[in-house]
Amino acid sequence: MRTQLASSVTSEPLLLTPGPLTTSHSVRGSMLHDWGSRDATFLDINEAALEQLVEIVNGGADYVAVPMQGSGTFAVEAMLTTFIPKTGKVLILTNGVFGKRAARISEIAGHHVLVHHTPENVPPDLTAVEQILIREPAITHIFAVHCETSSGLLNPIENLALLAAGYRKNLLIDAVSTYGGIKLDAPTLKFDALAASPNKCLEGVPGLSFVICRKGALDATKGNATTLVLDLYDQWQHFVETGQYRFTPPTHVVVALHKALEEFTAEGGVGTRGRRYQENSRVLVDSMRAMGFETFLPDHLRAPIVATFLTPDDPHFVFEEFYQRLKCRGYIIYRGKLSQAKSFQIACMGRLDAQEMGHAVSAIRNTLSEMGVQLKTPDRLCLSA
Amino acid sequence: MRTQLASSVTSEPLLLTPGPLTTSHSVRGSMLHDWGSRDATFLDINEAALEQLVEIVNGGADYVAVPMQGSGTFAVEAMLTTFIPKTGKVLILTNGVFGKRAARISEIAGHHVLVHHTPENVPPDLTAVEQILIREPAITHIFAVHCETSSGLLNPIENLALLAAGYRKNLLIDAVSTYGGIKLDAPTLKFDALAASPNKCLEGVPGLSFVICRKGALDATKGNATTLVLDLYDQWQHFVETGQYRFTPPTHVVVALHKALEEFTAEGGVGTRGRRYQENSRVLVDSMRAMGFETFLPDHLRAPIVATFLTPDDPHFVFEEFYQRLKCRGYIIYRGKLSQAKSFQIACMGRLDAQEMGHAVSAIRNTLSEMGVQLKTPDRLCLSA
Repeated sequence: MRTQLASSVTSEPLLLTPGPLTTSHSVRGSMLHDWGSRDATFLDINEAALEQLVEIVNGGADYVAVPMQGSGTFAVEAMLTTFIPKTGKVLILTNGVFGKRAARISEIAGHHVLVHHTPENVPPDLTAVEQILIREPAITHIFAVHCETSSGLLNPIENLALLAAGYRKNLLIDAVSTYGGIKLDAPTLKFDALAASPNKCLEGVPGLSFVICRKGALDATKGNATTLVLDLYDQWQHFVETGQYRFTPPTHVVVALHKALEEFTAEGGVGTRGRRYQENSRVLVDSMRAMGFETFLPDHLRAPIVATFLTPDDPHFVFEEFYQRLKCRGYIIYRGKLSQAKSFQIACMGRLDAQEMGHAVSAIRNTLSEMGVQLKTPDRLCLSA
Repeated sequence: MRTQLASSVTSEPLLLTPGPLTTSHSVRGSMLHDWGSRDATFLDINEAALEQLVEIVNGGADYVAVPMQGSGTFAVEAMLTTFIPKTGKVLILTNGVFGKRAARISEIAGHHVLVHHTPENVPPDLTAVEQILIREPAITHIFAVHCETSSGLLNPIENLALLAAGYRKNLLIDAVSTYGGIKLDAPTLKFDALAASPNKCLEGVPGLSFVICRKGALDATKGNATTLVLDLYDQWQHFVETGQYRFTPPTHVVVALHKALEEFTAEGGVGTRGRRYQENSRVLVDSMRAMGFETFLPDHLRAPIVATFLTPDDPHFVFEEFYQRLKCRGYIIYRGKLSQAKSFQIACMGRLDAQEMGHAVSAIRNTLSEMGVQLKTPDRLCLSA
């Protein structure tokens, strides 16, 4: 394993951030060429990558991957504005930044929006969701975030999918941070569309996103879009007719995705990658807890892709100093976006294994020592032992 | 010069296409690192690049560069939907694919759109434009394409800017294919906004675009945008407040732009680069004409960034075969997008000089010979001599 993780041999800081993240040398090296965006060599690479994206969720012939330029949010906005017609009504489940962002997108688009909001450490209340579906038969779509990256909370997407199917609502999913790292099965979830990014668990570089679309649903979206560039139907039709992007694609980023997918398959796919991240997460969280840090979420709600730690009360712990000192030691962490509690994030995804995560933890331990931060006094350690 | 053009030493095909184009090894090499998108190292690089973009058009303190993810069309749609309010009325000048695309974008956005259309080889009729401005006082904005890349026609942007100023209309410009290669002066043109791309004359990689915005005009656009991701005002405010992108940017592409701008400055800026492209264009067009090819446009209308050649009548000239044979010889050309005449395009921009263009012309000559295409008989050559 170690030898595969080419990033470990570089001297530049490793990214322990929830995207961009640390990619392999070979993925970055694939960007050393220029590609004609309408030339067959590039188009074949692109087509192979898009087909593999569909396979990852067992989409078979019923689904198609439509790429979108830009970050995951571009894919989410493209999905919401392509799939929800002007007359549609969407129930949006929010418990963090990304759910709220989707609600804002839908409001700007002029959709009828209903929001079911829960605190950042609470999954949607399925009973309450069902009550809303009964009370509001005009709802056409349900939007849910798989992993709310701002906290790391893994929402109960299978149960939500059952509810959506039971009440015949079209399901739209933001799986930006989990695609390729946590199992998602299209035949089970029966979603109309699912937005994701090559720059999270797939370990590609940022600059592209994509939406896995059920062809039957996508086919009915003609004329829905509120823009030209975010129109997934139009891009899909253009692929069908010409095999090409409508507008100059980020060729280097697409080729890097193709390379990243090759390495994803070589590693063993979702199962193996997910286990590596779980192991990264275990090493990180166990060690941080042993140092006295507390996670924002209990273990049963946490996705193994990013951990949110509460900022300690210790007056010696100044986050900016902690961040800079860790950066000097070769690790970049994340300030976080949580509104409910002072916190920071360390991601477990990217081209890193448990050994590297162990090194990161050592760097954190040494940094705390340098800063004079002592989260667990010997007494407390005794008490908790 | 030759030694600077690192692309010449590679064995992969060179791109003679109007974006993506051939970039330098060092620009591509700058993508071999991963960058934290909210880390100061990356943010400093990004800020320096954005400031330099403003300097290229002498924007001074009055203008700001707001980046947009995606190709030039993303910047054009962001510009149109951010700057034109719901109550606005826009006059769009079209004489090719990119003008028409802008009109479509504005129509989707629900703007009041007036189109002044001229054929693909005819610039806008300034007298007719003035008549429209007199007849339609409700017009708030004028949109013009600097170089209509689909033909290579250089529209009279200075005269249009004078008209816009004279009738107090807000000017929006698509300068995607000319920025950095042909002089554009903000204090002279007095545009409200100008959309461009790092992946044309600036010789960066695709995946990013930007809009040069007059701050006074941008400041008045709050609430105009029809989407979240294409809202230039919101991104500008976010930069002012945090120095950061709202959504994960294409970090590698941004760093490549920064490197490309370094090389742009080292070469001598717009003047020197423009002269290199002019020389490329002269070598290409003179040689192609000598072989019997005809350009779609007369010289006084042609921008020196891309040349459109009419497809010869010779039955031995099959474009697909010509394309493939040239690709095998190391050059990728472009099928073109012209609707008015059968044609193809060869671009003069990218990390190429006249010597390389001469090699390309030799490859074309040898390809024609292989294919048995003889555009000028000895008799015709005698007649024209």
